[in-house]
Amino acid sequence: MGAPEDCWYCPDATGPEESLVSGKTNSGNFFEDFKLGQKIQHATPRTVTLGDVALYNGLFGSRFAVQSADTFAQRIGYPRSPIDDLLVFHMVFGKTVPDISLNAVANLGYADFRFLKAVYPGDTLNAASEVIGLKENSNGKTGIVYVRSRGFDQTGATVLDYARWVMVRKRDEKAPAPGEHVPELPKVVDPAQLGAACPSLDAKTYDTELAGSPHRFGNYAKGDKIDHVVGMTVEDAEHMIATRLYQNTARVHFDHFTESKGRFGGRLIYGGHAISLARALSFNGLGNAFHIAAINGGRHVAPLTAGLTVFAWSEVLDAADVPGRSDVGALRLRTVATKDKPCDDFPYKIGNEYDPAVILDLDYWVLMPR
Amino acid sequence: MGAPEDCWYCPDATGPEESLVSGKTNSGNFFEDFKLGQKIQHATPRTVTLGDVALYNGLFGSRFAVQSADTFAQRIGYPRSPIDDLLVFHMVFGKTVPDISLNAVANLGYADFRFLKAVYPGDTLNAASEVIGLKENSNGKTGIVYVRSRGFDQTGATVLDYARWVMVRKRDEKAPAPGEHVPELPKVVDPAQLGAACPSLDAKTYDTELAGSPHRFGNYAKGDKIDHVVGMTVEDAEHMIATRLYQNTARVHFDHFTESKGRFGGRLIYGGHAISLARALSFNGLGNAFHIAAINGGRHVAPLTAGLTVFAWSEVLDAADVPGRSDVGALRLRTVATKDKPCDDFPYKIGNEYDPAVILDLDYWVLMPR
Amino acid sequence: MGAPEDCWYCPDATGPEESLVSGKTNSGNFFEDFKLGQKIQHATPRTVTLGDVALYNGLFGSRFAVQSADTFAQRIGYPRSPIDDLLVFHMVFGKTVPDISLNAVANLGYADFRFLKAVYPGDTLNAASEVIGLKENSNGKTGIVYVRSRGFDQTGATVLDYARWVMVRKRDEKAPAPGEHVPELPKVVDPAQLGAACPSLDAKTYDTELAGSPHRFGNYAKGDKIDHVVGMTVEDAEHMIATRLYQNTARVHFDHFTESKGRFGGRLIYGGHAISLARALSFNGLGNAFHIAAINGGRHVAPLTAGLTVFAWSEVLDAADVPGRSDVGALRLRTVATKDKPCDDFPYKIGNEYDPAVILDLDYWVLMPR
Repeated sequence: MGAPEDCWYCPDATGPEESLVSGKTNSGNFFEDFKLGQKIQHATPRTVTLGDVALYNGLFGSRFAVQSADTFAQRIGYPRSPIDDLLVFHMVFGKTVPDISLNAVANLGYADFRFLKAVYPGDTLNAASEVIGLKENSNGKTGIVYVRSRGFDQTGATVLDYARWVMVRKRDEKAPAPGEHVPELPKVVDPAQLGAACPSLDAKTYDTELAGSPHRFGNYAKGDKIDHVVGMTVEDAEHMIATRLYQNTARVHFDHFTESKGRFGGRLIYGGHAISLARALSFNGLGNAFHIAAINGGRHVAPLTAGLTVFAWSEVLDAADVPGRSDVGALRLRTVATKDKPCDDFPYKIGNEYDPAVILDLDYWVLMPR
Repeated sequence: MGAPEDCWYCPDATGPEESLVSGKTNSGNFFEDFKLGQKIQHATPRTVTLGDVALYNGLFGSRFAVQSADTFAQRIGYPRSPIDDLLVFHMVFGKTVPDISLNAVANLGYADFRFLKAVYPGDTLNAASEVIGLKENSNGKTGIVYVRSRGFDQTGATVLDYARWVMVRKRDEKAPAPGEHVPELPKVVDPAQLGAACPSLDAKTYDTELAGSPHRFGNYAKGDKIDHVVGMTVEDAEHMIATRLYQNTARVHFDHFTESKGRFGGRLIYGGHAISLARALSFNGLGNAFHIAAINGGRHVAPLTAGLTVFAWSEVLDAADVPGRSDVGALRLRTVATKDKPCDDFPYKIGNEYDPAVILDLDYWVLMPR
Repeated sequence: MGAPEDCWYCPDATGPEESLVSGKTNSGNFFEDFKLGQKIQHATPRTVTLGDVALYNGLFGSRFAVQSADTFAQRIGYPRSPIDDLLVFHMVFGKTVPDISLNAVANLGYADFRFLKAVYPGDTLNAASEVIGLKENSNGKTGIVYVRSRGFDQTGATVLDYARWVMVRKRDEKAPAPGEHVPELPKVVDPAQLGAACPSLDAKTYDTELAGSPHRFGNYAKGDKIDHVVGMTVEDAEHMIATRLYQNTARVHFDHFTESKGRFGGRLIYGGHAISLARALSFNGLGNAFHIAAINGGRHVAPLTAGLTVFAWSEVLDAADVPGRSDVGALRLRTVATKDKPCDDFPYKIGNEYDPAVILDLDYWVLMPR
């Protein structure tokens, strides 16, 4: 998922310390505050509504029919349109920020990231994390915290489960390391684990004309590359509205006064914004990839700031049966997003280095009707 | 509706061809792909929700009481507040873009545009078009496609029906013309065709104080001119959020990287955005014009880009009875929108040419309580 | 609340007169149009929806758990999450603008501002005002209008009640003053009047871990100062979307063409936007201050324009019992917001003058669980 020195996500160094001034504000956890096995209940439960869905649609323009129309969703077997998978992710992720990554130097990676239950308007999301690994860096100033985070609905059922690791500063460089354990995490989610958030569908009733693409699971093969063609420029108002909607509190996204003096000359766009943009753009070529079932890994290769235009392309890394399911198949995709560079020649790496235009390298499983 | 050479809507010439690179992305139809009588089911059904309504209100600030308050709507005879007519239009129009106008050079006009059934939150919209005319241009490079497009709700009832013509490029200049037929279309919708989307009202219960204007149908006369006074500046974030909400895929609205090198130096704002702005501004002077019943014709006279301020004025072109209706009367209006020019002197044409500040010339019927 | 000469809120002088050109547009009331005891029913009732809530959340990022999650609200005794108090205020205030302050030179102050009933999604808001005071200024060009404004829900119950005074221009300087009466208004709302909009709660079921702050009423004491740490930059698209959502028609917020030539070089941000930003920022340190019960007074010390970053800090001015309530206590807070100045040293006044970075000085009561 990238070595620490590769990471661009570096909140200004003076920020979090200032929050120590007041005894009642949240200054977040530093590396030495975490303990192996520690369980953290995150704050601010959130009822997800049709209002959130509309705003998400306005910000990304997604066109997947299952999420767009109750009638389409019901016809194939959903009770109604589910909440977009990534909106669920952003809301769960947002809750973890104040406890896990307020003092982060870098967001290093994700693994074993599975959507486990569909979320519908009116459901209330909650999140909790468990510390599953800790490793102090050799410089003694920072350490890597591995957490398993879970999102729950109001019934207590898990809707999302993922491992994430993040580099966090120490408050006191002389504090002893809180332990050392590096967890083993799968490189790819097993196809047998996909589909828990997707009801059993009647694939014959899936109308590809209405969905906007004639291509079903069987039309894709390993190695296929698809340029998603259209570019989408990001404005500061847009990414701030999105990130506030998720109640994500990372100040680097919101404070131009401070960030304009920082390394990137302005507000950094939440990495998840690029994921949602790439997903929405991917409709053009992957119009029936109606559900993200799992994320195998992802890397925010370079920062994104407002005024830049995001393009994307995808490669089919694998096509797999989902055991026990004849209605859907799973495509493993790599979706690459760039800034200010169209993707008709599939920009990725130049030698061992990423093309400087690449901002996102995402490896994930989608479901498609057969 | 304006000769082709008058039109400003010119997507960059290289855009759509690029989309041919991938076999799975939608490259849209070119002139020679259309056939007279061809029927096209458009993709992506869309459930319209209270979330969409809120976002539309935030973007345009409309204040018509029927659409603003369920209590007001119910008192006069609606089951609840209907969806704003123009929001219905934008959503239906957006669906037609990938099939009809992805390779358009110019959007030439509308005619016989009628709202036929009120749409309410929770309804799901669908769209289909029929090719009703074709005419190749003498240069052999482009042709005019005439379509009749219809929006439907989940019961299959038609909510909107309109003719539109658009200039579309040929993929292959040597391809033979796909036929030639220019349909006859009415210059003005007959008042007998108005009101299908408006329930029978109890006009006495229409409270003009709550509605914000004392002027009923009888207070307006042919020739009245009204300056709507207030100006509204458009930001890029705003028009992109709106246009994505409608799932309109025309890339000229979203891609600053490409458009900044193009003819207008930036993203073009969707023409419908100016219509919605002008409609919202027209509340000041037309506060009881609660329903757009039909559009006789409209012209996007000049492009609009972000940072400019839209003003508007209206003229009453006619005042007509709606046969069989004693509750409402119909005003035929011309609403003119300008950019960066207040409308206290009603700017329109200078000789035969439009004032260079004019961006929109819209001819339509509204209903007002008697 | 500040002498007239201190006020920055000065719409361009030529604006409202222009609106007199048309007989059907609203030119608002001038000072001599008001009469002591006059009652004004404001226009445009408004059904508040979950869509409005989502957009408000996207614009301000509030994290108070009661308003965020139905489950949290229900557990402590609400039927569901109530609408954010300030969203109710902005919607009621917006309705008063066309009648009270379209010709205002300055918004001078608020007093005796009480939330009286919780508002829920689906409720419809209405507003009316009564003129409770009038005083012509010695220059004969302007006068101060004191109104008591009330917001109602669809049952006719008062949800919000406040006094406000505003300096309004005369249309005709020779017109006689319409009377003179300066009402007496309380400097602080009596704690016995707080809590009408807050149901009786089961404070034991209030989960401070889920709410995001361990500090209950008893943890705060008079004199406590809290830096809310995080800064939030405002974009033009954001404040315009917010202000249109409230159907506030003050043109200074929307018209860059005119305002760019004016005193501030651009659109002025609605003063209420700064209040909502400061409230959302105050979560960091006041996470359990779940309800604004009353506003004792407030002053928009300096204008705010887009691109600036808002910071905030608060001081506990008092901690009071609410008579008859053992579930909640009331904190009287002063929240100060600044532009482009972090608040770790609590910027406020330099001698008798406000620090030039201060934009808002708000004195209000919040409720906290005991």
